[in-house]
Amino acid sequence: MPDEVLNDISHRRYNPLTGSWLLVSPHRTKRPWQGAQESPSKSTLPEYDSKCYLCPGNKRAQGDSNPDYKNTFAFVNDYSAVKEEQQDYHPETNKNDVASLLLQARPVTGRCYVLTFSAKHDTTLADMTPEEILPVINTWTRIYASHLSPSHPLKDHAKQALTTIPQNPDGEVSPPTHQLKNMQIFENKGAAMGCSNPHPHCQIWTTSTLPEEPGKELVNMGKYKSDTGRHLLDDYVKLELEKKERVVWQNESFVVVCPWWALWPFEVLIISKRHVRALVDLDEKERLEFAEAVQEVARRYDNLFETNFPYSSGIHQAPLDCTEEEAETSWLHMHFYPPLLRSATVKKFLVGYELMAEPQRDITPEQAAAKLRDCGGKLYRKSLQ
Amino acid sequence: MPDEVLNDISHRRYNPLTGSWLLVSPHRTKRPWQGAQESPSKSTLPEYDSKCYLCPGNKRAQGDSNPDYKNTFAFVNDYSAVKEEQQDYHPETNKNDVASLLLQARPVTGRCYVLTFSAKHDTTLADMTPEEILPVINTWTRIYASHLSPSHPLKDHAKQALTTIPQNPDGEVSPPTHQLKNMQIFENKGAAMGCSNPHPHCQIWTTSTLPEEPGKELVNMGKYKSDTGRHLLDDYVKLELEKKERVVWQNESFVVVCPWWALWPFEVLIISKRHVRALVDLDEKERLEFAEAVQEVARRYDNLFETNFPYSSGIHQAPLDCTEEEAETSWLHMHFYPPLLRSATVKKFLVGYELMAEPQRDITPEQAAAKLRDCGGKLYRKSLQ
Ligand SMILES: O=P(O)(O)O[C@H]1O[C@H](CO)[C@@H](O)[C@H](O)[C@H]1O
Ligand SMILES: O=P(O)(O)O[C@H]1O[C@H](CO)[C@@H](O)[C@H](O)[C@H]1O
Repeated sequence: MPDEVLNDISHRRYNPLTGSWLLVSPHRTKRPWQGAQESPSKSTLPEYDSKCYLCPGNKRAQGDSNPDYKNTFAFVNDYSAVKEEQQDYHPETNKNDVASLLLQARPVTGRCYVLTFSAKHDTTLADMTPEEILPVINTWTRIYASHLSPSHPLKDHAKQALTTIPQNPDGEVSPPTHQLKNMQIFENKGAAMGCSNPHPHCQIWTTSTLPEEPGKELVNMGKYKSDTGRHLLDDYVKLELEKKERVVWQNESFVVVCPWWALWPFEVLIISKRHVRALVDLDEKERLEFAEAVQEVARRYDNLFETNFPYSSGIHQAPLDCTEEEAETSWLHMHFYPPLLRSATVKKFLVGYELMAEPQRDITPEQAAAKLRDCGGKLYRKSLQ
Repeated sequence: MPDEVLNDISHRRYNPLTGSWLLVSPHRTKRPWQGAQESPSKSTLPEYDSKCYLCPGNKRAQGDSNPDYKNTFAFVNDYSAVKEEQQDYHPETNKNDVASLLLQARPVTGRCYVLTFSAKHDTTLADMTPEEILPVINTWTRIYASHLSPSHPLKDHAKQALTTIPQNPDGEVSPPTHQLKNMQIFENKGAAMGCSNPHPHCQIWTTSTLPEEPGKELVNMGKYKSDTGRHLLDDYVKLELEKKERVVWQNESFVVVCPWWALWPFEVLIISKRHVRALVDLDEKERLEFAEAVQEVARRYDNLFETNFPYSSGIHQAPLDCTEEEAETSWLHMHFYPPLLRSATVKKFLVGYELMAEPQRDITPEQAAAKLRDCGGKLYRKSLQ
């Protein structure tokens, strides 16, 4: 236990990656719940759904047809949040012009992809084996590599990595028409997390700007480095492996922890043990071990409340266009933010106080880690079959 | 229109209160929706519910009974997120001790209240008249006043305000046992916003620490003031009243706008037109006009999609314990964050990209303001009765 007293008293914890605090109320899990309950997910999906716009061979919203792909298939989102080509907009900011200070806007261009994880409509990362997840990791790596700037410090590593990953026979994405700044890979899983299609897939949004969250992480990791001469996540991984109480699982290359500053009830972080700046730094063995870590998280989540566990996950790594120093400050990690609190149907709401004042959590990350450590083993659905 | 082109291109807008950016994708509202739908709210509640822990005369979870109150009634939350008395915890931070840098925690004490808006189980702020909402504003003011530090710069204003607000015959809250730093008044309305009881009520969390959001606002308003010599919200109110396109409604003392940097689809901000540092600065007429503004927002929300519109709202004002300068930097305003996007059943999810990278919105604040301007008039439910 960190400091025993933190199991009883309300306290704030500091998130050194974002530089902000959150409120922890360990005594509050006892309150009764009369509010909204999520309906437990039924797993009665077919392996192929003719109405699904992600299944192999099917037609999509804007008329394109999917190939008869085998595992992963990437295409440009038919309803992208950003587009590559648009009108220009060049506002000026002027200290003496109030509107230019208070009504600031900047154009953002980019390209958004959808990437399927499997041809099967009814599977999830929790059902797949690490070997079946490997093509997903490989495709993430290939897409990231193909979007790197020509002068990127990881360009040579990217070339090297590509020699060890076979091309996707179902098609590769083309490089963007102009250089973009950042690539955000993320998955929304489950209706509770705004996912509109159960077919296993993630999204990849590339933008001409560095978004807020990875931006804050770079700044804070950079500060830590110049203050201590060491990498924040390097120190953090070593500390957690030594303390053990927040570690959920590990293999040779990755550790899964409920971070000290976790905001969501069962939030976890997959962190690479050595300094991996981006996906292209991983070798073949490490890519499989990353797939294994993702599988462990997804399966343990489903086992925890014996349900198809909703979450949003996302990968942070070096920007597509960055300096040597920014690349060195980056450290590959993957966040999982799941909303469930006490069962398949009772979720934690990040609402009033959380939005107006400060995020608040009930169970401690140490308690969450202990529960997740205890639900390894076979996927609960397998034993029901 | 601000700059016509912003209706078509994806762009980022800057929030000067928090100092962060968000992504706006005006072209994305067309995408089809196959995901979760909220169930439209049925308004078949009784005026009195014997099982409701907020109705007059009923027993609460821990055995206390509510008085037979007439409108507002405040009591200490039976499951408070923070408590006034708890064990102490004094960690040391030391540059050479990694654990003290990366595993930081600080104790937080405080007191949490629940405050009913009405004795009627089946009403909402949208159903109530400004005169019926006035006791709510008055109770907020009395509770805020009774928690101010002895040396607070607004202490005299508070005394003055209290002479114009009658005591609540159904009981007053007692001052805290030790001085607290901040008071966050907020309402979670609707099951979609984690509200566990439809009886109209808000919560008031007082804490020994200044939370993240009001903290960021104070810093950013302070910077603006030292840069320009003017108040950020003063400039902003004047600018919006001149531009008009984001103004939803106004009376003599308050303006309701969809802020330039709105994150939620129909987010609004109620801002006082003159420099009001906290509730205790309002005179009798202004308190009624504040009630009127709150009523306008709640009614327009319900009219928009003809439903009992869910939202979280919250008031930002001067901290309970602050310097003269911090009080002068504060400016009373109230945020409303509603999740609905296109109808009573389709909400906007702040998930994957929003959590991992940056908040993203679809319709522009100008489009939202135009819709909210158009749905004034009688509450839609009234015409159905
Ligand atoms: O205290 P309540 O109403 O039971 O709880 C609600 O509001 C709190 C403050 O925003 C949140 O922390 C809870 O997740 C939410 O369910
Ligand atoms: O693109 P999708 O899956 O339709 O949309 C989902 O993910 C997006 C990115 O996190 C969110 O902006 C949407 O609110 C959500 O419904």
